[in-house]
Amino acid sequence: MTAEIQIPKEHRAVVYDKPGQVSTAVVTVPTPTPGVGEVLIRLTHSGVCSSDHGIMTQQWSHLPPTPQNQIGGHEGVGEIISFGPSTSSSGNLKIGSRVGIKWLASVCDSGSCIACLSGRDAQCPGQKISGFYYPGTFQQYAVAPASYVTPIPDGVASEMAAPLLCGGVTVYAALKKTGAQPGDAVVISGAGGGLGHLAVQIASRGMGFRVIALDTGNKESFTKSLGAESFFDITKYPRSDPESATKLATDVKKATPRGMGAASVVVCTGADAAYAQALDFLAFGGSLVCVGIPEGAGPVPIAGALPGAMIARELRILGSAVGNRKDAIETMDMAARGVIKTHFTVEPMSRLTEVFEKMERMELQGRVVLDLSRE
Amino acid sequence: MTAEIQIPKEHRAVVYDKPGQVSTAVVTVPTPTPGVGEVLIRLTHSGVCSSDHGIMTQQWSHLPPTPQNQIGGHEGVGEIISFGPSTSSSGNLKIGSRVGIKWLASVCDSGSCIACLSGRDAQCPGQKISGFYYPGTFQQYAVAPASYVTPIPDGVASEMAAPLLCGGVTVYAALKKTGAQPGDAVVISGAGGGLGHLAVQIASRGMGFRVIALDTGNKESFTKSLGAESFFDITKYPRSDPESATKLATDVKKATPRGMGAASVVVCTGADAAYAQALDFLAFGGSLVCVGIPEGAGPVPIAGALPGAMIARELRILGSAVGNRKDAIETMDMAARGVIKTHFTVEPMSRLTEVFEKMERMELQGRVVLDLSRE
Amino acid sequence: MTAEIQIPKEHRAVVYDKPGQVSTAVVTVPTPTPGVGEVLIRLTHSGVCSSDHGIMTQQWSHLPPTPQNQIGGHEGVGEIISFGPSTSSSGNLKIGSRVGIKWLASVCDSGSCIACLSGRDAQCPGQKISGFYYPGTFQQYAVAPASYVTPIPDGVASEMAAPLLCGGVTVYAALKKTGAQPGDAVVISGAGGGLGHLAVQIASRGMGFRVIALDTGNKESFTKSLGAESFFDITKYPRSDPESATKLATDVKKATPRGMGAASVVVCTGADAAYAQALDFLAFGGSLVCVGIPEGAGPVPIAGALPGAMIARELRILGSAVGNRKDAIETMDMAARGVIKTHFTVEPMSRLTEVFEKMERMELQGRVVLDLSRE
Amino acid sequence: MTAEIQIPKEHRAVVYDKPGQVSTAVVTVPTPTPGVGEVLIRLTHSGVCSSDHGIMTQQWSHLPPTPQNQIGGHEGVGEIISFGPSTSSSGNLKIGSRVGIKWLASVCDSGSCIACLSGRDAQCPGQKISGFYYPGTFQQYAVAPASYVTPIPDGVASEMAAPLLCGGVTVYAALKKTGAQPGDAVVISGAGGGLGHLAVQIASRGMGFRVIALDTGNKESFTKSLGAESFFDITKYPRSDPESATKLATDVKKATPRGMGAASVVVCTGADAAYAQALDFLAFGGSLVCVGIPEGAGPVPIAGALPGAMIARELRILGSAVGNRKDAIETMDMAARGVIKTHFTVEPMSRLTEVFEKMERMELQGRVVLDLSRE
Repeated sequence: MTAEIQIPKEHRAVVYDKPGQVSTAVVTVPTPTPGVGEVLIRLTHSGVCSSDHGIMTQQWSHLPPTPQNQIGGHEGVGEIISFGPSTSSSGNLKIGSRVGIKWLASVCDSGSCIACLSGRDAQCPGQKISGFYYPGTFQQYAVAPASYVTPIPDGVASEMAAPLLCGGVTVYAALKKTGAQPGDAVVISGAGGGLGHLAVQIASRGMGFRVIALDTGNKESFTKSLGAESFFDITKYPRSDPESATKLATDVKKATPRGMGAASVVVCTGADAAYAQALDFLAFGGSLVCVGIPEGAGPVPIAGALPGAMIARELRILGSAVGNRKDAIETMDMAARGVIKTHFTVEPMSRLTEVFEKMERMELQGRVVLDLSRE
Repeated sequence: MTAEIQIPKEHRAVVYDKPGQVSTAVVTVPTPTPGVGEVLIRLTHSGVCSSDHGIMTQQWSHLPPTPQNQIGGHEGVGEIISFGPSTSSSGNLKIGSRVGIKWLASVCDSGSCIACLSGRDAQCPGQKISGFYYPGTFQQYAVAPASYVTPIPDGVASEMAAPLLCGGVTVYAALKKTGAQPGDAVVISGAGGGLGHLAVQIASRGMGFRVIALDTGNKESFTKSLGAESFFDITKYPRSDPESATKLATDVKKATPRGMGAASVVVCTGADAAYAQALDFLAFGGSLVCVGIPEGAGPVPIAGALPGAMIARELRILGSAVGNRKDAIETMDMAARGVIKTHFTVEPMSRLTEVFEKMERMELQGRVVLDLSRE
Repeated sequence: MTAEIQIPKEHRAVVYDKPGQVSTAVVTVPTPTPGVGEVLIRLTHSGVCSSDHGIMTQQWSHLPPTPQNQIGGHEGVGEIISFGPSTSSSGNLKIGSRVGIKWLASVCDSGSCIACLSGRDAQCPGQKISGFYYPGTFQQYAVAPASYVTPIPDGVASEMAAPLLCGGVTVYAALKKTGAQPGDAVVISGAGGGLGHLAVQIASRGMGFRVIALDTGNKESFTKSLGAESFFDITKYPRSDPESATKLATDVKKATPRGMGAASVVVCTGADAAYAQALDFLAFGGSLVCVGIPEGAGPVPIAGALPGAMIARELRILGSAVGNRKDAIETMDMAARGVIKTHFTVEPMSRLTEVFEKMERMELQGRVVLDLSRE
Repeated sequence: MTAEIQIPKEHRAVVYDKPGQVSTAVVTVPTPTPGVGEVLIRLTHSGVCSSDHGIMTQQWSHLPPTPQNQIGGHEGVGEIISFGPSTSSSGNLKIGSRVGIKWLASVCDSGSCIACLSGRDAQCPGQKISGFYYPGTFQQYAVAPASYVTPIPDGVASEMAAPLLCGGVTVYAALKKTGAQPGDAVVISGAGGGLGHLAVQIASRGMGFRVIALDTGNKESFTKSLGAESFFDITKYPRSDPESATKLATDVKKATPRGMGAASVVVCTGADAAYAQALDFLAFGGSLVCVGIPEGAGPVPIAGALPGAMIARELRILGSAVGNRKDAIETMDMAARGVIKTHFTVEPMSRLTEVFEKMERMELQGRVVLDLSRE
């Protein structure tokens, strides 16, 4: 049966043809052969993430320059069509299994560094980032380690799964770090965005938190439909007006149990303003969990991170990077149970440049998923 | 037998006669009568803490002015000599029991607010601070709630116990928050100071951490005698020299297991520089625990508290105020077992002004304890 | 305004007039006067719990005999009508506040024993049990410590709140001990019963667990309406048939994620058979949480508690008694949000004997709540 | 340089030549070739564990029969002399690195099953047990997965390290599960034995617990030299005398803080009596951690595992199997710091039968380590 699978010599991929600029091109590339421990995956879908945009345009100054004709993407879903030599096909994976490729394409050979053994894959010194110095998921065929791909459960459509592999896993890992208990109030900043709309669902329906959604504009009905208990339109509280900032904190606190403040604020946007406000929403002992990475000129310390203030109210600030393999499996479980749904639109490969342009103009609604069978 | 106890109508106390200045006076005050739920304690010793200095000189701009003739002090030890009406003498406390009064003289009437029920006494809205708008422990007799005093175990001398009631409990509560496991490296900044020298002992002998001590000057042999595994003289790494700052981080990391960095840094000094450096010492996932409160002009955000950097290395920053009743009991247990010893000198009441002057000039070695039986 | 409240000299109460038998009588008793730290509560409702039955009939051989004419009951709700001397009315409590009395009427005077400070009120050596050697809640007026009553939030009817004060708090405390994470499968044994039907709701709607309900007879639709994801009728798996017992374990495991078994089993019934089966349902590392207390002749060790088997699969067995004040507050919060609802019927005081008789015959559906205004 | 390493075609090994009996033979076997992902190790030492005896004599009725001429052993230390194909030599491992082989020779190919991802290697369905249906460490050369061997730090002698790879890691993993905090009292049953003497050291010197040692005979000075704070000779409390049993519990409790009982009992012996007594030593909320596996006829439920008693005192019973890779690394770190030392004697390969005979007669003092260079 496996003999029937036709593996082409070449396939189509979307590359960053002008790194530093918003520009992509669909090209033909050789189809790779899986090595020891690897599988070859026929990808059908890939989510498009703002991190892809960041890599393409080289906005993260601390990273090396993006290679010419880098194949981007890190939210890929497809099916296994062959196993590399000495690679077990006996486990849960077999020909035809649907699997996902994540931001981390792989970690250290053995998964045996202290970071991996601690469940902190993001800290593995041997990690390879999908779509950055390692071929990404904007292509029809990709190889990946059998031990690092995420099985996609039946009942989760591939186009639904793709964005969860990055955004879903990331916010889930962050929500786990909040220290919040079921019934606690958790503020999601940027609640209507790509990360935020997943965080609202996981927090409320998945983990039993009472979600307070913050975002700009008219995201109230959207975030409430995802499970948010209350919503605040931050454009009504301009930062330029100090009284407004104070009023926002007052209003958010009123929406928490006994008016004591939130157990946690998870910042899912990169806006400095979101970080500057967050500590004011917290109850004593509360946590600010950093997820969104500010872009732009110079990095700014979190405005309220003053030792005296943090001591007086026993606050916590935590950074959370991406999740690990177990987080990914649990995220897929939630999707299979209907706890989370991605809001997305599907586009062919050739529209990727346009998608990034819309992303820059903040015109996207939800996530975009590339259909890799269409050009 | 209890009939033999003579309770005087008046007793001697040390007051802040010129709030805002370093000035104290020994005066005669009326001996209070314990109310319902209270005990009267004949105090024999009181530690002198830098927080007393801060209250006397009104350095904490966010607090109301210190009252004229405030009786200071919050590290008092003595014995119970009478019980208020309707106050049980049947429990563990009885006439003659040695007990301690802490920074928090009492919490809400019932101990039933959310903060108290969460074990976060420092967050109780009904708290009363000993020696600030509530009579402190620089006096020969004081009343305190029977439910809130800390029993002093046999085998712990009163003059030894006094400073532990504040500094010991505070650093113990902070060390519990680090998230460090036995065998992990923990950096103590300000390791030779009043808080730091207790933190080194509790961390190393009490909790199984591997302590890296940081301080100025020649505190190496002192901190190592307390249990520190390594020591770095920060004066050899001037902040003015950027290479020096980097070198300090490099050297500290080399002293940690596998050179990966510390699991936690507990800042026991109020120096902004200590906070600015701390994040650089950490391993991924590590915690900076804030204990020392910076004084002076305007508060400064922690230099490295940048969302991007915290996310990349999954760092944590935590504020820790004072401990609770259980922390105090456990601290006393450690003292009874010989795990911690306070380094102190004993002075009579009339020398308190001089003690504060030495404190300002940083001439004190260890803690000072007032002998309240001597004037 | 408070002057208008009329406090009668006497009121009506239900007593156990023949301890050891199922027999109650409505009698007139003197209305107590609140002491220091106490409040007087005009009770309107009291739940009826199987523990009341156990005390009345003296079924727990390890307890002393129940006093003649003991006023029973430990799930009382009413409003505060006066404060004892030296008792603060300034906090959250005031005349007219609705509050609840729990299984533990009070703990040690100070709340300062190690058990109380550890949040394990059930272990306090100074505890007083409501309705057993301390006047219970089957009466129209009762005194209770201001610090130990549980405020009832607006929006939770008193008759709804009463049974939650015991059963709700108990299962919530037990569910917290499971170690289960949101999304994990948790088996509730006795899911349709007085404790179980609350556990199903808190576990599924409150804490994000996936609930597998076990009970006898046709409780499927009832437990699923409460949030259970699957149901097994244990009468279809007779213990007399060894294959049946094995099949139940197999079937339950199939209902768990990846068929690996449940993260926890919370036994809400006192049936030895429930305990004997429970370990077989667990995934490796899973927990059996004991809540229901077996009655009858001699106590039986849990059948599967064999060191070898527990080691091989790294299982856990945990005992959980009642919750503490914080657990009670959080349970009420869940009720106020609509997460839990008690299923109950209301009866007048004079019907209590009949209620206990039905309880013996297992004819009760849900909980019974006494309306203390009716006789 | 690596070219100089001579790998022989054959080497010497100790096999179980008569499975079911105490009998071993030194034979010549072919030297294996490392496969993909594997390394070839020249073993110098192997500890001898009672589990080896159990496998040889087929005492564990639930396991399949031991193969004829099985090479036993699971505590091996040696140095890497070659890498299999496609196996990285770039990481921390290189030719000449000293590494250890543990009870689990390997886990699932990918380390990606839920058990492995949960850090519970002992639950991996793909595990291979060293010395049982997989060649063990009683031989001069063995292959093992590069990702699963444990690096041995400089400063830890190979003969010291060997027994720690099994016994040390096992008790460390168990002590982590106790839930005890630094300063808590932990009882070690079988404190002078192969597992127990390591547990005493790790608990007291490594983790800050206060150790109460229980054992037969005159192990007092030995266990106290390892860090135990108190010792009880259980032969002085015969189980046949009920008063004696009660007195032991009373005496043990007296040795705990405030006489409240131990936070945990870790049973490091397989004696049913040890399990039967353990719950009586505990403070409320305490844990019994099962490590030693009872042998013999039929398994016996833990005597005190009665739901009612466990609920009343909120006790916990936990099973703990072997540790994982991170536990092994941390155990080696403790050895490198001098926290733990193994007490052992060294024997040549040909003496193994005699060693097992002494083990049966309980004549061994500490562990035995085979010197694999000597016959």
